[in-house]
Amino acid sequence: VRGITVRRDKLAACGMAEARRLLRDHGMAVSGLSRAFASSASDPAVRRAALDECRRAVDEAAALGALFLTMLGEAPRDGSKDLEGARRRVRDALADLLPHARAAGVPLAIEPVHPMNADACCINTLAQANDIVDELGEGTGVLVDVYHVWWDPAVEAEIRRAAGRILGFHLSDWLVPTRDVAFDRGMMGDGVIDIPRLRRLVDETGYDGFHEVEIFSAADWWRRDPDEVVRACVARYATAC
Amino acid sequence: VRGITVRRDKLAACGMAEARRLLRDHGMAVSGLSRAFASSASDPAVRRAALDECRRAVDEAAALGALFLTMLGEAPRDGSKDLEGARRRVRDALADLLPHARAAGVPLAIEPVHPMNADACCINTLAQANDIVDELGEGTGVLVDVYHVWWDPAVEAEIRRAAGRILGFHLSDWLVPTRDVAFDRGMMGDGVIDIPRLRRLVDETGYDGFHEVEIFSAADWWRRDPDEVVRACVARYATAC
Repeated sequence: VRGITVRRDKLAACGMAEARRLLRDHGMAVSGLSRAFASSASDPAVRRAALDECRRAVDEAAALGALFLTMLGEAPRDGSKDLEGARRRVRDALADLLPHARAAGVPLAIEPVHPMNADACCINTLAQANDIVDELGEGTGVLVDVYHVWWDPAVEAEIRRAAGRILGFHLSDWLVPTRDVAFDRGMMGDGVIDIPRLRRLVDETGYDGFHEVEIFSAADWWRRDPDEVVRACVARYATAC
Repeated sequence: VRGITVRRDKLAACGMAEARRLLRDHGMAVSGLSRAFASSASDPAVRRAALDECRRAVDEAAALGALFLTMLGEAPRDGSKDLEGARRRVRDALADLLPHARAAGVPLAIEPVHPMNADACCINTLAQANDIVDELGEGTGVLVDVYHVWWDPAVEAEIRRAAGRILGFHLSDWLVPTRDVAFDRGMMGDGVIDIPRLRRLVDETGYDGFHEVEIFSAADWWRRDPDEVVRACVARYATAC
């Protein structure tokens, strides 16, 4: 285990200097900084504030030496149901952020999020993320999380299409039954995702970055001893991925 | 309220003769019979048994005078994770059923089911359903349920593509937060789906069938007085759809 994603809320609680010291002392590379939202708002003042916040996230990623900043698309807010409009404004917000990200040398990793979370995040398929990268170009890429994309009939074609632009690859499993729409992910091998197939597709694109385990699991793994969790991740990575 | 979908489990409990009497006495047309699964199995004996069960469902739909039989695609079973293979076998199962359905005069309404239920049903986008209808032709169509398709970036294009083949249109709403992946749907207007937009798109195809309310709601609407629920459906259909 040579790398880790840093969460911005944990970073804020810990402080940049201490975070850098901890990462250095443990010999850990920073794969991604998680995360910032591209704004879906229409109001110019709200958009400006969101852009400022995204720029701060870029600066934090640069200060950590992170390989990328994870970007999510904000769903319609404040009672709006205009999903298509939100998607257009999210793309525009990414375009607005891009010059700052390029200047800082921090690629933006656009992460499609499972459609069951479309009420929070409006980029829900790898095709959408690939379309944005096609449009915005250099300095953008995609983050492929098996939990978010496994169901997609287009996943094979879209992973191939993402060749050369995959910035991160996340592993977990889809439990049956799933008891929570956000925090009931499973350890690799405990669910129904054909993880080896997706890993092979990602590997075949030439991706050589980290394979990261990300298991949001409020009722199970988060309650266990962290050392046990890391040992299980290592063991299951060897047998189920 | 002039029509209703009949559930096969309720029909079995009630009996065909009593069901027909109840429907006639209440002046209710039968929109769809819900539901049968196109098999994802590889084993020939399992597939034959599933086909026999689907043919019985077709016969029940014919006996009820239902406008269509709702067909779902079975997800991989018995430990299989071969989602793509399951999708091919589901298409084949629909093809196998089609001669019987055509002879009985019962169209097969292929219903794409939200990706959060991909562990149960493997047809998850309207594009998939439209592809199958393109391939199988006469006697097949699609069922559009706003709850299943609202998140889809391709929903507008795929509803237009479905012109002339939409057999049913289902209404409910996506609650925030959603507390259960199967049984936490909301009354129209209580969630985040832009229902009027989807209804307009469906109407613009020339669809003139029923607009059906389908609210799986174990913790809320199913616990209320049925007359109150029907009154709420009628009222919300007028104001939120």
